[in-house]
Amino acid sequence: MAMLSRITELFEIDYPVVSGGMVWCSGWELAAAVSNAGGLGLIGSGSMGPDDLRDNIIKCRKATRYNFGVNVPLMRPQAPELMEVIAEQKVPIVFTSAGSPKKWTSWLHERGIMVAHVVSSSAFAVKCEEAGVDAVVAEGFEAGGHNGKEETTTMCLIPAVRRATNLPLIAAGGIATGDAMLAVESMGADGVQIGTLFALTQESAAHENFKRLCLNLQEGDTMLHFRKLSPTRLVKNGFQNAVQEAENRGASEEELLELIGIGKTRIGILEGDVENGELEIGQAASLLKGREIEPVDVVMQRFVQEYYIARKQLINQAMEEQMSRRTLM
Amino acid sequence: MAMLSRITELFEIDYPVVSGGMVWCSGWELAAAVSNAGGLGLIGSGSMGPDDLRDNIIKCRKATRYNFGVNVPLMRPQAPELMEVIAEQKVPIVFTSAGSPKKWTSWLHERGIMVAHVVSSSAFAVKCEEAGVDAVVAEGFEAGGHNGKEETTTMCLIPAVRRATNLPLIAAGGIATGDAMLAVESMGADGVQIGTLFALTQESAAHENFKRLCLNLQEGDTMLHFRKLSPTRLVKNGFQNAVQEAENRGASEEELLELIGIGKTRIGILEGDVENGELEIGQAASLLKGREIEPVDVVMQRFVQEYYIARKQLINQAMEEQMSRRTLM
Repeated sequence: MAMLSRITELFEIDYPVVSGGMVWCSGWELAAAVSNAGGLGLIGSGSMGPDDLRDNIIKCRKATRYNFGVNVPLMRPQAPELMEVIAEQKVPIVFTSAGSPKKWTSWLHERGIMVAHVVSSSAFAVKCEEAGVDAVVAEGFEAGGHNGKEETTTMCLIPAVRRATNLPLIAAGGIATGDAMLAVESMGADGVQIGTLFALTQESAAHENFKRLCLNLQEGDTMLHFRKLSPTRLVKNGFQNAVQEAENRGASEEELLELIGIGKTRIGILEGDVENGELEIGQAASLLKGREIEPVDVVMQRFVQEYYIARKQLINQAMEEQMSRRTLM
Repeated sequence: MAMLSRITELFEIDYPVVSGGMVWCSGWELAAAVSNAGGLGLIGSGSMGPDDLRDNIIKCRKATRYNFGVNVPLMRPQAPELMEVIAEQKVPIVFTSAGSPKKWTSWLHERGIMVAHVVSSSAFAVKCEEAGVDAVVAEGFEAGGHNGKEETTTMCLIPAVRRATNLPLIAAGGIATGDAMLAVESMGADGVQIGTLFALTQESAAHENFKRLCLNLQEGDTMLHFRKLSPTRLVKNGFQNAVQEAENRGASEEELLELIGIGKTRIGILEGDVENGELEIGQAASLLKGREIEPVDVVMQRFVQEYYIARKQLINQAMEEQMSRRTLM
């Protein structure tokens, strides 16, 4: 039962559901599983070198006959090498983030590759349109990991971006249930990008400790930090507590950089030291509290069902309202 | 054209739209105008003494034949006197906030007064149900003024509260356009509470300087502060800049309390010193950029129209999807 939207048509997928390119989570297994389940899987190159990325692309292609893509954070010094691998491997879709959409869009288009760019404000969405991207991802404050300086939430960001551009619009941040997809569609989104929900599946490359911890969070158990550097949503743990304490006493950028150190997300997310590592997940994790670590296809089917149930309820309510008016007349 | 929801039925109103009880904005004129326009107007007693409140209730009753209510922040030392005035004046509906829902609900119910309580987490929503309130308001991080410690956004909060309780649910925070009302309904809300949109109308008691400034904000022009005291969303101005600077260098609670001083919201919102006063408005203000200061009925009609247009689009899209499936078979 394919859904009809500008995103399903653009990427030739069944559901307008993209899995975000998440460091230490989004390897070929997760990307292929999401594409096989009817969405668009992304390989997250944020934690990969060129050879590792090539390996992931080759394995992903073997594991799915459907479209998949690669996410490239443009602030990475290795971005040019990663792009070369993507072109060489003829990946059909690239999601760029953390940089200017003008930088790579033409280069990718010349090689027949579709481009979506991630933004956190409507001003940047307009720049995306000017750069000629094929779709824009608008990501709100509730999203895990790196985040916009304006702290605009998905509820405020999606109507703003919808009014600013006619581009196919993918909403991200806070979407972990099917009814939330209906909500952002109500505000003009054509599809969703999901991180949290897929980061905690069996096919995610993250450590089991990380997944278990994130499937037991309460509301308020993730917080935005590093406003002085680059805003990032972290799970409360020993590392986050040290960051919180440093920020409370007004720590300088230098002190904070020292706290971050090197490889803290790898230690936390991939290696499973959930006390000392840097853990990144979205606010919506608390909506999954008590769930098991499930395979992607189970998660996707539940999500799609939740969407259809919510939509049916909304339509029934509209019908009931119409009927009650006729009765009154 | 009345809408059908548990909120319109509970409060006997046409649209499930409540105007928040906002300090220095929500006097009798705004409350009566919202009730006359088909919503539920609230008088905000947060900036009133008992005599002032009585005066506002009497004037509001003269100005509308429809239901209206009073919002009482329970942390106010004068809350008991305000409640006595409400009972004496037989106000039909009270919205309580900033305190325990157990404190006043029975007392108000014994006097035939309906009670809604404002929360920022699903845990507190459960407490509301236990306390026997008639409806719960769930308010997200994007809301103006006082805010929850968990920083949960409306997109994450509404599904959480909907799963936690069966109470009639009013969503608040980030809702300034009709499509946003459809969005929260998609996630199970029965109605909305709106602050920002009504604070900037002609009937709001706020100063014209405040309204003009807030109708010209960009995304990112409001920020959450006072996390060490009581989180509050402020508009960027001279006062906010001083707060930001103090927080950046790790100012103590005592220093921050001194910065807040006394009467800073009065100076900013009521008296119109928009540089030195404390200005409170929601993130959604940036969605209103460039609008004029309009009367409530114009604003309400546009909001309702936006809602119907968004709902029609959503239903049409669902129909189209059904049709395309049949064509494929």
